[in-house]
Amino acid sequence: MRPSGPCGTMTSISGDNLTQDAFLGGRVQLLQPRKGYRAGIDPVLLAAAVPATSGELVLELGCGVGAALFCLGARVPGLTLAGIEVQPDYAELARQNAALNGMEAQIHTCDLRQLPGDLRNTCFHHVLANPPYYDRTKGSPAPDSGRDMALGGDTPMADWVETAARRLRPKGWLTLIQKADRLGEILTAATARLGSITVLPIAGRDGRDADRVIVQARKDGRAPLRLLAPLVLHTGPAHLRDGDDYGPFIRSILREGAALPRPR
Amino acid sequence: MRPSGPCGTMTSISGDNLTQDAFLGGRVQLLQPRKGYRAGIDPVLLAAAVPATSGELVLELGCGVGAALFCLGARVPGLTLAGIEVQPDYAELARQNAALNGMEAQIHTCDLRQLPGDLRNTCFHHVLANPPYYDRTKGSPAPDSGRDMALGGDTPMADWVETAARRLRPKGWLTLIQKADRLGEILTAATARLGSITVLPIAGRDGRDADRVIVQARKDGRAPLRLLAPLVLHTGPAHLRDGDDYGPFIRSILREGAALPRPR
Repeated sequence: MRPSGPCGTMTSISGDNLTQDAFLGGRVQLLQPRKGYRAGIDPVLLAAAVPATSGELVLELGCGVGAALFCLGARVPGLTLAGIEVQPDYAELARQNAALNGMEAQIHTCDLRQLPGDLRNTCFHHVLANPPYYDRTKGSPAPDSGRDMALGGDTPMADWVETAARRLRPKGWLTLIQKADRLGEILTAATARLGSITVLPIAGRDGRDADRVIVQARKDGRAPLRLLAPLVLHTGPAHLRDGDDYGPFIRSILREGAALPRPR
Repeated sequence: MRPSGPCGTMTSISGDNLTQDAFLGGRVQLLQPRKGYRAGIDPVLLAAAVPATSGELVLELGCGVGAALFCLGARVPGLTLAGIEVQPDYAELARQNAALNGMEAQIHTCDLRQLPGDLRNTCFHHVLANPPYYDRTKGSPAPDSGRDMALGGDTPMADWVETAARRLRPKGWLTLIQKADRLGEILTAATARLGSITVLPIAGRDGRDADRVIVQARKDGRAPLRLLAPLVLHTGPAHLRDGDDYGPFIRSILREGAALPRPR
């Protein structure tokens, strides 16, 4: 399978370099580069956290091959899906993945600071994002340039939040997942621009530090910030047997496309 | 018992208006205004979180009657204790409480943005603070003006952090306790000025939102932010019987002056 599309010749990703992987117990199939950035559970958790309902407009910033967008589309039918992705190869795979999963999605190849006109004229009920996890100005790049870009972008967190805030309708929700150690940057940006913030810590095991956070914030929201009880991924104090040891609730999110409950 | 001291005649707080209360299982005695701001468990938890060792210099910003400062002094002997408090009556009670507990402490009556010269010339190993919990520019004031000031100050969180940062030695620690809903303001200020931040959520019960956070940050710290597992105060899903239902670890902090463990 050779990707092709409006963004020109694919040189770095061709059929031999792709895998097709199942998400949500097979309900979502994703073509991914064999060696580049590959979706793990984070985009699945992100999709499970977006409080979207049928008929709403959804935009993902930095959608990669579309893992979060299509997991969300599989869980909530009737959404209008859009994504932007700065890397043309990944954007093209996202277009192919939309077709592979029988979903319609407008995927734009662009930087999030330079959205095309039709996106700038649209306001969304939901914006989601799984921004790169490492600051590329520190540390050495990954050997694969696409993986390097997906893991460690050079766009400040404030720009992710600013773009989201501009594209949200009043009372619209930003939902993002990120490494917990960037909570300071995220909250600095989110408190300046949005409100009604909730922080969901995600810990590998009970009693451990959070590895990830899912932060939600609402345009024009006025509710106080909430720091929720952690979501704990694995059962028991350590990994003791073959296979995964996800708790039943996490398993229902990953395998059956369950939603994260809205905070009460 | 009638307070008197360098800050002039006490009009709002006299002997009849005071109570003497036991903290840390009686190891610390505190004179407090009967009707004003009264220390609960938060200053005790704050004191338990400060990683001070004998011989170090400690400054509390907004020390009130000295609950946190003297709980810390009781747990760690050999500290040099200083506190500032903007309300003269509370500052004077802090001086009396130092004597009552056989501790030496320099208590200054001043605004944290206008420290006296001898404090401006001193660098501390630790700064602690339990800033007011409500923004006085929103909502109505408490009937008692002292309680109102202690509960809802008008000093921005950034000024608390800025003053702490200026008064800390290199690698010195700021430790503060605050309502969890102000985590955004706290991290905005702390990430701009300090590093090696840890956030300890404090929840009433397992699975509940955090009510409080203890945030620690280090001057010139370079370690990534850590979001720790919550400290859970009470056992069981709800308050089911007379008396308190603190868990054994919390009880050891409140009754025996145990320290919160340093994050590993």
